[in-house]
Amino acid sequence: MKKNPMNYTLLCDFYELTMANGYFQTGMDQQICYFDVFFRNVPDGGGFAIAAGLEQVIDYIQNLRFDQDDLEYLRSKGVFGEEFLNYLREFRFTGDIWAVPEGTPIFPGEPILTVRAPAIEAQFIETYILLTINHQSLIATKSNRIVRAAEGRPVSEFGSRRAQGSDGAVLGARASYIAGCAGTACTLADQMYGSPAGGTMAHSWVQMFPDEYTAFKTYCQLYPHAATLLVDTYDVLKSGVPNAIRAFQEVLLPQGITSCAIRLDSGDLTYLSRKARQMLDKAGLTQCKIVASNSLDEYIIRDLLLQGAKIDSFGVGERLITSKSEPVFGGVYKLAAIEDGQGNIIPKIKISENPAKITNPHFKKVYRIFENESGKAIADLICVHDEVVDPAQPLELFDPEATWKRKTVTDYTAKELLVPIFRGGKKVYESPNIEEMRAYCAAQIDLQWDEVKRFENPHNYYVDLSQKLWDIKQSLLKENRR
Amino acid sequence: MKKNPMNYTLLCDFYELTMANGYFQTGMDQQICYFDVFFRNVPDGGGFAIAAGLEQVIDYIQNLRFDQDDLEYLRSKGVFGEEFLNYLREFRFTGDIWAVPEGTPIFPGEPILTVRAPAIEAQFIETYILLTINHQSLIATKSNRIVRAAEGRPVSEFGSRRAQGSDGAVLGARASYIAGCAGTACTLADQMYGSPAGGTMAHSWVQMFPDEYTAFKTYCQLYPHAATLLVDTYDVLKSGVPNAIRAFQEVLLPQGITSCAIRLDSGDLTYLSRKARQMLDKAGLTQCKIVASNSLDEYIIRDLLLQGAKIDSFGVGERLITSKSEPVFGGVYKLAAIEDGQGNIIPKIKISENPAKITNPHFKKVYRIFENESGKAIADLICVHDEVVDPAQPLELFDPEATWKRKTVTDYTAKELLVPIFRGGKKVYESPNIEEMRAYCAAQIDLQWDEVKRFENPHNYYVDLSQKLWDIKQSLLKENRR
Repeated sequence: MKKNPMNYTLLCDFYELTMANGYFQTGMDQQICYFDVFFRNVPDGGGFAIAAGLEQVIDYIQNLRFDQDDLEYLRSKGVFGEEFLNYLREFRFTGDIWAVPEGTPIFPGEPILTVRAPAIEAQFIETYILLTINHQSLIATKSNRIVRAAEGRPVSEFGSRRAQGSDGAVLGARASYIAGCAGTACTLADQMYGSPAGGTMAHSWVQMFPDEYTAFKTYCQLYPHAATLLVDTYDVLKSGVPNAIRAFQEVLLPQGITSCAIRLDSGDLTYLSRKARQMLDKAGLTQCKIVASNSLDEYIIRDLLLQGAKIDSFGVGERLITSKSEPVFGGVYKLAAIEDGQGNIIPKIKISENPAKITNPHFKKVYRIFENESGKAIADLICVHDEVVDPAQPLELFDPEATWKRKTVTDYTAKELLVPIFRGGKKVYESPNIEEMRAYCAAQIDLQWDEVKRFENPHNYYVDLSQKLWDIKQSLLKENRR
Repeated sequence: MKKNPMNYTLLCDFYELTMANGYFQTGMDQQICYFDVFFRNVPDGGGFAIAAGLEQVIDYIQNLRFDQDDLEYLRSKGVFGEEFLNYLREFRFTGDIWAVPEGTPIFPGEPILTVRAPAIEAQFIETYILLTINHQSLIATKSNRIVRAAEGRPVSEFGSRRAQGSDGAVLGARASYIAGCAGTACTLADQMYGSPAGGTMAHSWVQMFPDEYTAFKTYCQLYPHAATLLVDTYDVLKSGVPNAIRAFQEVLLPQGITSCAIRLDSGDLTYLSRKARQMLDKAGLTQCKIVASNSLDEYIIRDLLLQGAKIDSFGVGERLITSKSEPVFGGVYKLAAIEDGQGNIIPKIKISENPAKITNPHFKKVYRIFENESGKAIADLICVHDEVVDPAQPLELFDPEATWKRKTVTDYTAKELLVPIFRGGKKVYESPNIEEMRAYCAAQIDLQWDEVKRFENPHNYYVDLSQKLWDIKQSLLKENRR
């Protein structure tokens, strides 16, 4: 696997450096802090998001160092003293990180990554962690919606040319594969991350030949076992499909090859696919697949299938790779606690006039609760770090806003969502390979109720606080009110 | 300036490789082709877009080579023969490229970049060129809208944490600076591209201290000449602004420093800024600036100013760095002509049922026509490559759809938009530095009429075809119709 050799240490907001210098100058740099990454809203009004990007966070943390160029650049800004620059020369991440594995369904308000580290380190890594987790979780979430809409038909990611930069294309393709896409058009995503790349021809291939039939025949001769012919350069039904049928019959069938495909990239996909299916079947090419592309997303795919389109697989471009209908995943990085130097953790809260923006204080853990009868997830429970949920005991869950809404579950399983990634600066986690992540993601989504998986108006999954955490939050709110 | 050492040669769609192999196997690889990059719609319904990303295209073309890892990866796909892989080992770009300079206002339908090269090369570079030009032109266009809304007040780019990947952040910041932003929060964008980075504190800085006043006082002591205090951690008017005033008065004023700022990051920005302005003025801090941030874009900034908000500068994050309201720039790469081997250029057209999707054939040039009286741009004229517009002669312009709409201009200047970038694979263009690009962009936008610069319902700028090109297009349409 090819690695990106770029050092992203300075991919930070400049205020992380002014604050770092401030902590250093005032002797606060070694103050142990806890920061949580969480998000507030599921994109597109969906029922859940999908976590992705952790492997790139791990690479970043492991490669974190200011090289000579970086130090000279910082010196040139005229803001930082030599003592601080010398300190940065030896700067490494020495803290702890916990995170949910990639491919996990995640819900608003719960920590999906927690950092425990000296203030100067914990603050410095904010921007890169957020941009990586936000970007890949966004694309994984969108991709999974599109994959669900296709109801088992393969979806390929085709969007590199409209992606927001190289990583937008390559890491976007990675996230889309974890979330269930069958592959990508992006070659580098295959080489670097193992998201299988494929593709056949552009319109320009057809235009380069004297006629469409010659273009198709040549392609079938070159790639008899992977012939997907693009049939809409001139006229799909009058020219494209008949020429494709002729090429398949003249080149592939004599070799005994019956697996082939055509691709529709414009026009009324339902009408054209139904007509094309009839023409292919009539010619005996019942095994020829029909691939469709052209500004697709989950809504259009759902409509096409409802209309009876005869499409076997989808290529999805710009609306997937930019998550066009909602291109921002709003993960935030908030201080949750500090330590007092005597082993005590002091919870911190960020108040807001908007109750949804008030943070959950303290060093926390998250359990996902599954009912044993169906095996399905019924709630996530955010607890203080030292609490333990024991499935041998009944568990009382309650809505943290409407606290009179309570229920007690008995026959259940509790699984911790956050796993240790770094301990004392050392990596203690081995990322699964991308196939394992993809399989894990699919399995975890199967554990969600269909009501949570709706595209619109999903059931609101329960994310509850333990009684202990709820009490701490209330007392901090009261304290701040005074 | 730090360089990204990553080799992006394999950041191509896989079909570019299958087609390249096809051209190679069939002896068509050296067929000279012309491809145009153009776009069809201005994002957000604006009157023009701004070209950006050319410098990264140049870097890509110069670094284009398949290294040993790339060749081994391609061999592992089992699709390509050894002869082709050997050919790729020596693969370089040997063709010509013309492009509009970065910062140029551009309009739908006109070529903004043209490639003339052997088919195998011209086809291969499609994806990277499109993704780079599409991404940066998108962000430059959006940024300039936001900058125009701020009516001379500085706009800083704050969006790294919500960007779509690292390049989304860093190259997005670059594009935003070319288009008129005053700077960025992204440190790496400053180090790599010279977009000036700045920033002061997060809410967590305030939370780390025993109280807000101590946090502010400490910051003023550390950075007396760059103190921008974030005043909304607890309560803007009851706590934030009074504590900021006290810190300014106790730390800065005794040193004779009167330039300072507060930042509002939540709440009703009009109300809070007006109240804060009164409090600051009453305390004698008339030179203290007010910075506002929090999910801003051109529409909200325009509304804030209409409401009488007292804001001196803006920080704009996710809605700029992802161009949230329209996150896709739909640039395409289409075959325009081929050569016949005897020095003749054979124009090619791509037909579509949708007239807006029919391409302009042939190897072309574009003139921007300025009327001398006002100096303003009045039309762009797309010509065949060998035509010359002579301002000593009257020029007849006509609408390519409604051809009876004609006018003749006399007192005008004509400027060619596309300049040579590569000739025979050699770079013949020196990118201006980023300050020059930014100044050029501002100057070029000044040459557009205010009617074209409206956010909504702008005047439709004329993009016309020369009579010669129009005739060629019509005859190709008729020919294809047969």
